[in-house]
Amino acid sequence: MTRHIAVLGSGSWGTAFSLVLADAGNDVTMWARREELAKAIRETHENPDYLPGLPLPERITSTHDVEEAIGGADVVVLATPSQTLRENLKDWAPLVAPDAVFVSLMKGVELGTLNRMSEVIAQETGADPGRIAVVSGPNLAKEIARREPAASVVACADDRVATALQSRMHSPTFRPYTSTDVLGCEIGGAYKNVVALAVGMAVGLGYGDNSTASVITRGLAETARLAMTLGADPLTLMGLAGLGDLVATCSSPLSRNRTFGERLGMGETTADIIATSNQVAEGAKSCSSLRALAAASGVDAPLVQYVDDVVAGRITPTDMVDAILSRSTKAERD
Amino acid sequence: MTRHIAVLGSGSWGTAFSLVLADAGNDVTMWARREELAKAIRETHENPDYLPGLPLPERITSTHDVEEAIGGADVVVLATPSQTLRENLKDWAPLVAPDAVFVSLMKGVELGTLNRMSEVIAQETGADPGRIAVVSGPNLAKEIARREPAASVVACADDRVATALQSRMHSPTFRPYTSTDVLGCEIGGAYKNVVALAVGMAVGLGYGDNSTASVITRGLAETARLAMTLGADPLTLMGLAGLGDLVATCSSPLSRNRTFGERLGMGETTADIIATSNQVAEGAKSCSSLRALAAASGVDAPLVQYVDDVVAGRITPTDMVDAILSRSTKAERD
Repeated sequence: MTRHIAVLGSGSWGTAFSLVLADAGNDVTMWARREELAKAIRETHENPDYLPGLPLPERITSTHDVEEAIGGADVVVLATPSQTLRENLKDWAPLVAPDAVFVSLMKGVELGTLNRMSEVIAQETGADPGRIAVVSGPNLAKEIARREPAASVVACADDRVATALQSRMHSPTFRPYTSTDVLGCEIGGAYKNVVALAVGMAVGLGYGDNSTASVITRGLAETARLAMTLGADPLTLMGLAGLGDLVATCSSPLSRNRTFGERLGMGETTADIIATSNQVAEGAKSCSSLRALAAASGVDAPLVQYVDDVVAGRITPTDMVDAILSRSTKAERD
Repeated sequence: MTRHIAVLGSGSWGTAFSLVLADAGNDVTMWARREELAKAIRETHENPDYLPGLPLPERITSTHDVEEAIGGADVVVLATPSQTLRENLKDWAPLVAPDAVFVSLMKGVELGTLNRMSEVIAQETGADPGRIAVVSGPNLAKEIARREPAASVVACADDRVATALQSRMHSPTFRPYTSTDVLGCEIGGAYKNVVALAVGMAVGLGYGDNSTASVITRGLAETARLAMTLGADPLTLMGLAGLGDLVATCSSPLSRNRTFGERLGMGETTADIIATSNQVAEGAKSCSSLRALAAASGVDAPLVQYVDDVVAGRITPTDMVDAILSRSTKAERD
């Protein structure tokens, strides 16, 4: 008899992933920071703020009480904003069963410490790497919620844990593949948001598919360069959690990061955009931590530098796109 | 003093590439198979059939007389349909100056022989590999024609020739990078048309960006597997002539191959589509030769097999997309 799964965070991806878990046969307790959202999900079986109109399965309930969500859970899924994870875990860690497994859905690198989310989890909970997994792939939440077929990667240093999680989250429309390359999945997941900002800027400036494809190509090369320097497997970056996630995010008008970039490309400032959207694009925060991580690792990362400079208002999107598309003509790999 | 460049073939890519060459300072003579098209290009400075409304630079002229086009050219650009190249070259080879360089813009594998275009050129002209180059990258012809910024790869076994061609084709909006991996560029270029057919089918069936990103990811893995088995550099497939060209072609509603796939996905047959379009999608022909090439090389190539089966009417697009997205759940690289 499996125990329930706690999903901590009720944004669009936390909600869509809860639906996958319920479809796969699990009882799911979602935790929402705001009491009225938890109540709405519990009583109306719908998330009115992030996936309005989508009926959630009966196997999903919701609470504002984190102890109720975590207590008795054998899998704890973390789906909060990445910059608040550490603070949240300080409160949550004591509530988690000692044999429970953590699953991160988050795609960021912590400002200041430059830690990946799995590192923050290890530090704050004391869990060993065999109890910390990540899920990453071409998984736009709204399409997952519509139950369109999708594939993803579930990675854990302990491949038996990855395989156990795979069977817990395999639904008729969601197909997880296992991996042991947590690092590669996390760098791919964080970097793709920054590349999507750059693609959005090119789109906002009126450039077409040749230009966006070139930005994606340079972005994946830069992602792979950093990830491999840190110890990732290059095949992870070529796979669903690298190229797949990157292409889905950069292609979709549903992507918050791409949309944020488009608005920058059309001349709005970061402050303008934040003032008028209810969710901040993850890439607009993680560009500075990825820039610092690349610098600390001695990796040349022009795309992330340019995006960070645009987000901070130091250069214009035109400067950035021209610089990315017009590095000196020589051999491709130089 | 440089001599003129001959561009043999006046379709949309041949015409757009002629514009790049003219912008880069070359005199260009386009050859058109049909006399009336050659006349229209020469007299109206426009290609009314393939890029209507685009004024062509004065440096471009056009002829129906292949001897006039090739005579005195030091670069001969081949932009004909790939399946007719060999037959054309039998007539053209004797006209080419012994020091002239061939540049292939073609993206196919010959039916029957399974030869790449550079191999057909070598066989029919006797030119050694140091005189045969290919150009490949994210280069949708209509965007190039609008002078949107684009990058590409020019590959030749002799890197001095690649570098010389790079400077001949570097215009203010077209940026070529050099490579010596002709094989990798050619396999990437041919395969991407087949992957675009598969992506088009998924779109035609109503699937979203998660599914198309998964098809692209599986497609590039399959491309790299075949290309590397044949001796290509894996970095070529990660670069502009692999990933870049693939993403541009699969993203663009302008792509003939993707459009062909969409129509298959919506239930039309290959015969229906051919009957109502004036250009046949290259991927609909090269899927069977790539399938045979993979089989002859002992490479597992399910995507190309499925596409070939759909094009031939042996399975439905639904069968194909379901099969690609739902191979058995296990480790990603299996």
